[in-house]
Amino acid sequence: MSFKRKDLLGIRDLQVAEIEHILDLSRSLKEINARSIKKVPTLRGKTVVHLFYEPSTRTRTSFDIAAKRLSADTYSITGSTSSMVKGETLLDTMKNLEAMKPDVFVVRHSASGAPHLLAQHTEASVINAGDGMHEHPSQALLDMLTIHDHKGRLDGLNVVIVGDIYHSRVARSDIYGLTKMGSQVTLCGPPTLIPPDFELMGARVCNHLKDCIPEADVIMVLRLQKERQQQMLLPSLREYSIIYGISPAKLKNAKDDVIIMHPGPMNRGVEISPEVADGPHSVILDQVTNGVAVRMAVLYLLAQDRSSLPDISRPSSPE
Amino acid sequence: MSFKRKDLLGIRDLQVAEIEHILDLSRSLKEINARSIKKVPTLRGKTVVHLFYEPSTRTRTSFDIAAKRLSADTYSITGSTSSMVKGETLLDTMKNLEAMKPDVFVVRHSASGAPHLLAQHTEASVINAGDGMHEHPSQALLDMLTIHDHKGRLDGLNVVIVGDIYHSRVARSDIYGLTKMGSQVTLCGPPTLIPPDFELMGARVCNHLKDCIPEADVIMVLRLQKERQQQMLLPSLREYSIIYGISPAKLKNAKDDVIIMHPGPMNRGVEISPEVADGPHSVILDQVTNGVAVRMAVLYLLAQDRSSLPDISRPSSPE
Amino acid sequence: MSFKRKDLLGIRDLQVAEIEHILDLSRSLKEINARSIKKVPTLRGKTVVHLFYEPSTRTRTSFDIAAKRLSADTYSITGSTSSMVKGETLLDTMKNLEAMKPDVFVVRHSASGAPHLLAQHTEASVINAGDGMHEHPSQALLDMLTIHDHKGRLDGLNVVIVGDIYHSRVARSDIYGLTKMGSQVTLCGPPTLIPPDFELMGARVCNHLKDCIPEADVIMVLRLQKERQQQMLLPSLREYSIIYGISPAKLKNAKDDVIIMHPGPMNRGVEISPEVADGPHSVILDQVTNGVAVRMAVLYLLAQDRSSLPDISRPSSPE
Repeated sequence: MSFKRKDLLGIRDLQVAEIEHILDLSRSLKEINARSIKKVPTLRGKTVVHLFYEPSTRTRTSFDIAAKRLSADTYSITGSTSSMVKGETLLDTMKNLEAMKPDVFVVRHSASGAPHLLAQHTEASVINAGDGMHEHPSQALLDMLTIHDHKGRLDGLNVVIVGDIYHSRVARSDIYGLTKMGSQVTLCGPPTLIPPDFELMGARVCNHLKDCIPEADVIMVLRLQKERQQQMLLPSLREYSIIYGISPAKLKNAKDDVIIMHPGPMNRGVEISPEVADGPHSVILDQVTNGVAVRMAVLYLLAQDRSSLPDISRPSSPE
Repeated sequence: MSFKRKDLLGIRDLQVAEIEHILDLSRSLKEINARSIKKVPTLRGKTVVHLFYEPSTRTRTSFDIAAKRLSADTYSITGSTSSMVKGETLLDTMKNLEAMKPDVFVVRHSASGAPHLLAQHTEASVINAGDGMHEHPSQALLDMLTIHDHKGRLDGLNVVIVGDIYHSRVARSDIYGLTKMGSQVTLCGPPTLIPPDFELMGARVCNHLKDCIPEADVIMVLRLQKERQQQMLLPSLREYSIIYGISPAKLKNAKDDVIIMHPGPMNRGVEISPEVADGPHSVILDQVTNGVAVRMAVLYLLAQDRSSLPDISRPSSPE
Repeated sequence: MSFKRKDLLGIRDLQVAEIEHILDLSRSLKEINARSIKKVPTLRGKTVVHLFYEPSTRTRTSFDIAAKRLSADTYSITGSTSSMVKGETLLDTMKNLEAMKPDVFVVRHSASGAPHLLAQHTEASVINAGDGMHEHPSQALLDMLTIHDHKGRLDGLNVVIVGDIYHSRVARSDIYGLTKMGSQVTLCGPPTLIPPDFELMGARVCNHLKDCIPEADVIMVLRLQKERQQQMLLPSLREYSIIYGISPAKLKNAKDDVIIMHPGPMNRGVEISPEVADGPHSVILDQVTNGVAVRMAVLYLLAQDRSSLPDISRPSSPE
């Protein structure tokens, strides 16, 4: 089995075997990041363009580190740069960059579907690094890798996702992925932020944290955007924190081996208490470490010459 | 024949043999960008500093890709960075960077002549990436390369440049270059935007598109800056578009093999219609592709050790 | 003797032998910057993250050039990027980046002590690139290297620092370093900008430039932040310039071989006249050149595998 796609646009379209293949490769590549010389020549001479129309530190840096550790050259185009200001269309910007012969575009955009549109118009590979309220596939892959690291499997687990499900592309990608892999996903949050169609995706909705925490193998805490309060979707951050914020008290009846995840950046004291974020159940920094490995795997699968086989066994250069 | 200059400041000063040398080398280097491993070690250990005092995505990215594909290290200093904010003079900023021993400065500045001033005060090479309303030599070189690719020659052609000639450094560099190479340049646009001294540069002025389009081998469409309307140089964008916008209707009497060029970014529906921009005569994306090759050639000629000969035949590294 | 620290947080804590070791290594590495191929493979596969919460062109570029000339991969996170905007704590940002396995953080922050806090929470090395009004150790090291280059020693010299001592982390680091190395530091500036506790650090205060200039071997001119006037710490920039600005007239009684230094960026005509900045006594650009060498040395000492010995004798790669 292998991965033959040109693009990684979402988890929804992936087959179980493809997800497994990416996760297997991620585990191999992860080891590179623990070396003293964290670099292999695999993608030398390849060009990766980060096209970020939404601000991002961690995702862009994670992709950038992943690309450079595979020896690719990277370029960063952000939404505040000139051509966009000058009123050029997204497609013209991309076609222009494509004419410079990049191998991969890593795209973040506030419009759901933007990476899909670009993928149809370029021969280069497109990786969706987050599109509107749609998908964020590399986040779901790193979440699955992290869960598998700690639980040894992805099937038969009970994963509770807490918070603003509605606006979260992370939640959507995780629901698609975890459900596909055989886990039960339970959603918990303010009713204004969990529309009923999530049940069509195979997730279950739980109204009270106390009902779903005892069964949870994994609790995934979503970031609460503070602007939701102004949008009248929440009474107050304080009340949100009291009802849905994950604190040691809320975890009293949790399983001993429950793991706590968060895609970052955290609002400490809002959706998660510092005690939990830094506590023994937290695997939040493992997620970040796995993010680099998963992105290396995805870049590798998309940017490699299709004929060649992985060779990650030797360091970058005979120096 | 070779290229012995320290700097590339404009097309005006170049000799025909120098232009031909750059274009020949560009054609050789272009092939690298079509490889699977798009990288050669030619400028390894060389330092290229992008000093951009005007916003730019495409030109800066094109130079950056060109430099990295030759294995140079690149650094980007933009106008919003601190020292400039802190009131340091342009020359002090450059002298400071020079003390860090770069090999090439790629300079864009809103003041005509800024790169020339810098070039006089540094031992490093200076490439003018656009200065005020003066010159943009690498754009003219990529335009000439593109025209030559499609027409097989640069002499005896009829090149029509349409739009805001007055404010365009692209037009100035193209007029210098194409006239030197033996083509006839015809300018067409609102009289407020074509001052009479362009005829002294060897160009001809044409008042009505319908008079010059039938003879054109090349139509070069300039971007119309929307602020020209506020400056009372245009009645309205809509009227501009009706009179000077290049649309299929305007091309009815054009030669079958006319090529349409645009330096980008395009205002679709203003100076060029989408049908023309994406149509069979358009070579706009070829221009972008050639931009990387031309900039590789220029960087190569300026940054190489003068004693050595080009060796672009092997990939970057025996890894 | 060697350098065994994980971090470089300040000059205050360094021993004389450690300073000497860094300066010796800087002298060896300096030669790389004069080569045609300015690159060695020493830190290949190492990851250096610039974490700059204050704007900076020259310091960040200097560290970046230093890192890349040693073949490290670099990443730049600046204060305007998203996660910080999104309200994440400094420590969470750093822990997240740490999870991506960098080797060195180069940190600039407006809060004194921020790099020290970070250093306690990461296994990576931390270099203080300027923290509030506290220290800027690489600046003091490059200043000492420059003084040694010109004077052949660091002991027994008379170094006069002129200007806004109070707000200057450069002054603090220089006082610590030069005093440690056996020089006498004399401070001269408006009384509002020289608090009495500097004498506890071993420096002498001089009220009138004319009293300390004749004995000076080195005059270090500090940048005057123009906002000091609004803060009522100065009567006017013009008056400051008349009393403390270093001009040829002020140097009339100076030693023939006095050297003039400035950490940049300069306010020409305020704290230093153009004649002095560009005059025969000025070593200001030597400071910048030495900055790259000193930062290469520091990066090398912190990021190398502790077991290995320096090998800077061959160029980057056998290509």
